Amino acid sequence: DAITFAVLTISDSCYEEPAKDRSGPRLVTLIGESFDNADVIASVLPDERDLIQRELRKWIDRGDVHIILTTGGTGFAPRDVTPEATRPLIDRECNQLTLAIAMASLQKTKFAALSRGICGIAGNTLILNFPGSEKAVIECFDVVRDLLPHAVHLMRNNLRLVQRTHA
Amino acid sequence: DAITFAVLTISDSCYEEPAKDRSGPRLVTLIGESFDNADVIASVLPDERDLIQRELRKWIDRGDVHIILTTGGTGFAPRDVTPEATRPLIDRECNQLTLAIAMASLQKTKFAALSRGICGIAGNTLILNFPGSEKAVIECFDVVRDLLPHAVHLMRNNLRLVQRTHA
Amino acid sequence: DAITFAVLTISDSCYEEPAKDRSGPRLVTLIGESFDNADVIASVLPDERDLIQRELRKWIDRGDVHIILTTGGTGFAPRDVTPEATRPLIDRECNQLTLAIAMASLQKTKFAALSRGICGIAGNTLILNFPGSEKAVIECFDVVRDLLPHAVHLMRNNLRLVQRTHA
Ligand code: NA
Repeated sequence: DAITFAVLTISDSCYEEPAKDRSGPRLVTLIGESFDNADVIASVLPDERDLIQRELRKWIDRGDVHIILTTGGTGFAPRDVTPEATRPLIDRECNQLTLAIAMASLQKTKFAALSRGICGIAGNTLILNFPGSEKAVIECFDVVRDLLPHAVHLMRNNLRLVQRTHA
Repeated sequence: DAITFAVLTISDSCYEEPAKDRSGPRLVTLIGESFDNADVIASVLPDERDLIQRELRKWIDRGDVHIILTTGGTGFAPRDVTPEATRPLIDRECNQLTLAIAMASLQKTKFAALSRGICGIAGNTLILNFPGSEKAVIECFDVVRDLLPHAVHLMRNNLRLVQRTHA
Repeated sequence: DAITFAVLTISDSCYEEPAKDRSGPRLVTLIGESFDNADVIASVLPDERDLIQRELRKWIDRGDVHIILTTGGTGFAPRDVTPEATRPLIDRECNQLTLAIAMASLQKTKFAALSRGICGIAGNTLILNFPGSEKAVIECFDVVRDLLPHAVHLMRNNLRLVQRTHA
């Protein structure tokens, strides 16, 4: 079965000048290299909470987007509001997925402590907030790559798998 | 002093066929082996948020249940709602206890990233969400075993201990 | 540029007998030793949620306090309510900073699992909850020391830095 991804770059400067966006295209490439059966849609938005939330909501409501990856807006700058745009949409927090990503990031650099991304399930869609740098995006994707097909199977209620893992 | 535990197995299939429940009985055994002075009550419920919440609330309101261990319903499947049933009852989140359990789980398997359990204090009662597999329950109990008597002392306001550790 | 710190000791016994407070003064010393350009204000309060919240709010509203460090009230005792006083004031949770502190603490002692402190940004102010013991305060400060100047730059919107790190 195909997995449908949506990639959202969140950055004032990338929104003004899309050619600057390296993390979004990098995610699209990583998805294509990792999964034979992936469809990907992508978008770029400025660091505006309402705009971000509206785009995420639109994708969640489609019902056929399995996984949303955001990049950017997770830091300490006043306009970094990606987690705040994401959190109210979440029905079920995925705190150990957030943790797994954070632990891998902290092993690379202690400055990962200044990132604030979260993961959670909204409806049938898994949302993951990644940091904005291309390097961070590569590292974070590497943590979740093998988990994502399994996550989608479980969310979409593949009963055989659910009974076997019984998490 | 005696420590009173309540063990709640949360699983549609174990509710239909209680003989299938291995994690709940395993927890009861582990508690008995670990503490000389433990009382244990146990129950099995399906993955229904309202039923789970009502049972947890009943135990919290008794006032004499020190620790509730749940097993099951922490995953990504649509019916996995144990953390969502637990969270609204929590007065004080125990985020570092959640973290300690998660870190130990992630050291065993990266698929622990797909578990979503939380820990927190509701009234005088500590609630811990464990995953549903017997293996995971053994691993998680091993993380908290030595912490639980100390946690109960502190929650029940043993002033001598409180002053010494002054957390 | 100067960094303004506020240190809040939260402890019934230290409030009654301020000479007992070792963690607050220790934090003031550590700040002075670590940063040439630091101003520090300090206060001591009992474990009363409303009093704690009012003092934090006062500092946040001043607008010129960059970082608030609290010590105490993060444990499991009934009167430990520092995270509960802090959380409603937070605009943007800093979950990976909380995690970095927790992971370092858990490496020292597994009983750190019984601490519940959080970190977050309220307005222009970063708040960090540390445990109450002098030893824990030294360890936690050591984790964040190098991160704090960078955090302040980002929060205060130093655009050059923001663009370079693009978190
Ligand atoms: Na959390």
